[in-house]
Amino acid sequence: MNQATVSAHPNIALVKYWGKQSRGRNIPVSPSVSVTLDTLTTTTTVEQSFNDLVVIDGLDVKNEKISSWLEFARKKYEIPPICIRSESNFPASSGLASSASGFSALAVSVNQACGLGLEDQEVAELARIGSASAARSMWSGFVSLNPAGESCTVEQVYPKEHWDLRVVVAITDPRQKGVSSTEGMERSVATSSFHEAWRQTTEGDYQECLKALEDRDFSRLSKVAERNCCKMHGLMLTSDPPLIYWKPGTLAALDSLRILQEAAVPTFFTIDAGPQVKAFCLPEAADTVEEHLRNTPGVTQTIRCGVGDGPVVH
Amino acid sequence: MNQATVSAHPNIALVKYWGKQSRGRNIPVSPSVSVTLDTLTTTTTVEQSFNDLVVIDGLDVKNEKISSWLEFARKKYEIPPICIRSESNFPASSGLASSASGFSALAVSVNQACGLGLEDQEVAELARIGSASAARSMWSGFVSLNPAGESCTVEQVYPKEHWDLRVVVAITDPRQKGVSSTEGMERSVATSSFHEAWRQTTEGDYQECLKALEDRDFSRLSKVAERNCCKMHGLMLTSDPPLIYWKPGTLAALDSLRILQEAAVPTFFTIDAGPQVKAFCLPEAADTVEEHLRNTPGVTQTIRCGVGDGPVVH
Repeated sequence: MNQATVSAHPNIALVKYWGKQSRGRNIPVSPSVSVTLDTLTTTTTVEQSFNDLVVIDGLDVKNEKISSWLEFARKKYEIPPICIRSESNFPASSGLASSASGFSALAVSVNQACGLGLEDQEVAELARIGSASAARSMWSGFVSLNPAGESCTVEQVYPKEHWDLRVVVAITDPRQKGVSSTEGMERSVATSSFHEAWRQTTEGDYQECLKALEDRDFSRLSKVAERNCCKMHGLMLTSDPPLIYWKPGTLAALDSLRILQEAAVPTFFTIDAGPQVKAFCLPEAADTVEEHLRNTPGVTQTIRCGVGDGPVVH
Repeated sequence: MNQATVSAHPNIALVKYWGKQSRGRNIPVSPSVSVTLDTLTTTTTVEQSFNDLVVIDGLDVKNEKISSWLEFARKKYEIPPICIRSESNFPASSGLASSASGFSALAVSVNQACGLGLEDQEVAELARIGSASAARSMWSGFVSLNPAGESCTVEQVYPKEHWDLRVVVAITDPRQKGVSSTEGMERSVATSSFHEAWRQTTEGDYQECLKALEDRDFSRLSKVAERNCCKMHGLMLTSDPPLIYWKPGTLAALDSLRILQEAAVPTFFTIDAGPQVKAFCLPEAADTVEEHLRNTPGVTQTIRCGVGDGPVVH
């Protein structure tokens, strides 16, 4: 086999999933649509080895998600023992979608290094088994993920040229979150009396979001994205015990953005399973949004992103 | 008519209501149970006047809730034009239940000053028309409020001697909240897809809470109170537009309490429609809890309370 090095980016969902149909098959209960980012990058190198070896950000690790993924992949494909070296230029497991960029880069590099010859859709399917949102990082721009029977469909809704949006990521706590997304989703599905209502209303948010993207209607997109985000965190709060991923800086950032919105600055927030705030904005507002967030108490760092590309093989 | 001066305390619900059956009759959709506090006090004086006059904390005000309440009360009872002077020793309209102590003190003082000769239950009914939670402030200790047909039943579940609980109120933002409880509840009932699930599951929380109170089981009470509180704030988040009453200091206080809980300190939180955190605790933990909350960034003041009495006529 060859050596392969691949870079991939995380993606931020504008309409999110929270809950899987079953852990093994890793199929979300509801559709989602995301924006692939630039700037934030995971770079993964795969090469042959005597034993499987996983090195993340320079540390030899035992990563259960990667081990299960390899086990699954080997049932379908010929993959010898490999060494996986992965590095990200942003904090992992803290709500910045590192598993999306990570499994996307991993699936593409295994396909390359092992010469599996898979098409993009098949690689996306392989990435999805590692992390459902990783399938969305397989394309540039705006990408949808839909549960479909025993699998999912994933497709580029619009290429990145469709709409020049910007994202300012406000880091409020770079530490690993206390409850992983996988564990959190299982808790919500098992214990929240609101899960059914969440599932039922997400389809409407999804359609509304596609329409806002089609029309490049920022105000409409703001409303549906904030509503869907708050609904997901509402669902988390109704789990037993309650899941609270927000930190003081999260709410401080929301207050800052609310002040900008009242001054007609085109920006809106979304928050994933972690305390970081992602402020979407139109290009002309990016400087203002970043400056305000950087000066918000509790925000320790800001990162500027635009709409990014799919994985790149080096 | 005579002059009457009455003091009453706010109460903090362990299982809360959020949503009314109809605005006019002011009947919550679900049962609630509360603890009447001491320390925090509203004192109201009612006396005859040439015109109706409302003076709150020294300021002449036009208070629509009080005007509607007087209009309602005059349909049933002989009430001449009155001057109402009301003072509270804590911030109003910021999630500290000032409307509960306020309308409880008002109803009792009108009954006294106008010689209406009403029984406690009738006064409670009158207070409830002003603010549903005010009916719970009519008794000491632990009080329940249950919707019942065209009205409600309110009763003392246990007197204050039943269980010596303490409450440390952590003020994180003393300003008036942006969206009143009345308006917020209407928004949630009208727009949240989770409202039905909230309504259906509150009865279970209510029964669980009564059982925990009966057994003086602090751990069981902690779980149900935190779960019910987070579920209510989850419901608020799923409203459209989302209702976020929390501030950075709210989450900082929750983090502080979580650390104490992990060190086996008997304490739990509850939060009403506002950013303040109420930390319930056993007497031996009150010093520790207050010290930790006072040293939490974002907490501007702490107030120590115990379980309090019903209204007192001076």
